[in-house]
Amino acid sequence: MRKLDPVKHEEKRRDILEAAGRCFVRKGFRGTTVSDICSEAKISAGHLYHYFPSKEAIISAIAEARLEQANERFSRTTEEHNALGAILSEIDWTNSMSGASGLVARFEILAEAGRNPAMAEILQKHNRGMCRLLGGLLRKGQACGQIDPELDPELVANVLLSVLDGFKTVSIRDPETDLKKSFHLLKVLITRFLAPPSATPDT
Amino acid sequence: MRKLDPVKHEEKRRDILEAAGRCFVRKGFRGTTVSDICSEAKISAGHLYHYFPSKEAIISAIAEARLEQANERFSRTTEEHNALGAILSEIDWTNSMSGASGLVARFEILAEAGRNPAMAEILQKHNRGMCRLLGGLLRKGQACGQIDPELDPELVANVLLSVLDGFKTVSIRDPETDLKKSFHLLKVLITRFLAPPSATPDT
Repeated sequence: MRKLDPVKHEEKRRDILEAAGRCFVRKGFRGTTVSDICSEAKISAGHLYHYFPSKEAIISAIAEARLEQANERFSRTTEEHNALGAILSEIDWTNSMSGASGLVARFEILAEAGRNPAMAEILQKHNRGMCRLLGGLLRKGQACGQIDPELDPELVANVLLSVLDGFKTVSIRDPETDLKKSFHLLKVLITRFLAPPSATPDT
Repeated sequence: MRKLDPVKHEEKRRDILEAAGRCFVRKGFRGTTVSDICSEAKISAGHLYHYFPSKEAIISAIAEARLEQANERFSRTTEEHNALGAILSEIDWTNSMSGASGLVARFEILAEAGRNPAMAEILQKHNRGMCRLLGGLLRKGQACGQIDPELDPELVANVLLSVLDGFKTVSIRDPETDLKKSFHLLKVLITRFLAPPSATPDT
């Protein structure tokens, strides 16, 4: 057996994930075949299976990479001891990332998770990780009086992640909407929701 | 040409829409062929085209029927002069309707709208109708001091509809989540968001 160069292996792995991402955006998860991914990544099927055993394994790898990135962003922002600010800057980040293609892939995954147990498991694992990170932030905000202590952090985290996903549909629903204003409104919504009842949130 | 019985025509039309809905849930919009819909509805392709010229026309008819139903619900509730109550009861209604199958179809449509201009137009037309209805409710709430007069009704309507769609993902994300509690939290979120800043919303 040939010895693999770990750097080259990692590079090839990333190339395949990016090629697969482009295919999913164009033709959907169901519409994309392994052979589509191979021609996009310019490799043979045998070579592809060397990296990923299935389309689900590819989606799973994409989800894992995203969780890792979120973890890095969250650990950076929590150092600032401003939980609400960290949550709002996470929204900035999500917003800057959401091109039309990313959106489509996201809804494709949600639709597929409703039909395909393997995909549901990947989505749920990713969601558990994100809820743990966001729940930790919320708890810090509660400890320093920024966030309503009556709110259940885990429950709020799950609802907030759903709301953020939903927000990504605003420009599909209405391409002429003022995205900057909609985005400001989302921040008002989250700020008012999370603020302790006595506080008058600055909107 | 045979004369059509309008009642039978309408019944058959509805049968086809329901059969198509089941196919879309099972195989996705892209994965469903006209021939799948014909066998589910137990009619020939020629017969189907007599009612609908395309898959898009079927989705369009489903969206129109939903808008009509929403219009009926909204006109009923606005008579009570309680805009916030009407919005919250709309959430109750949406929630009671959202079986897993409906969710999947919903995200399928959002994903497809990002790829397929005909589908995007159907979604956007439906969204304009919903925003008009919801915007009217919000304006009434502002007039009677229930809703923050600083909020832009059309913009808020579009953001709220997105948030409601996003909320439908909570149980896909976490099947063990307490839906009743999550649902209560969504109402707290919307109540706090819409309340005039001076008011202390009852949560």
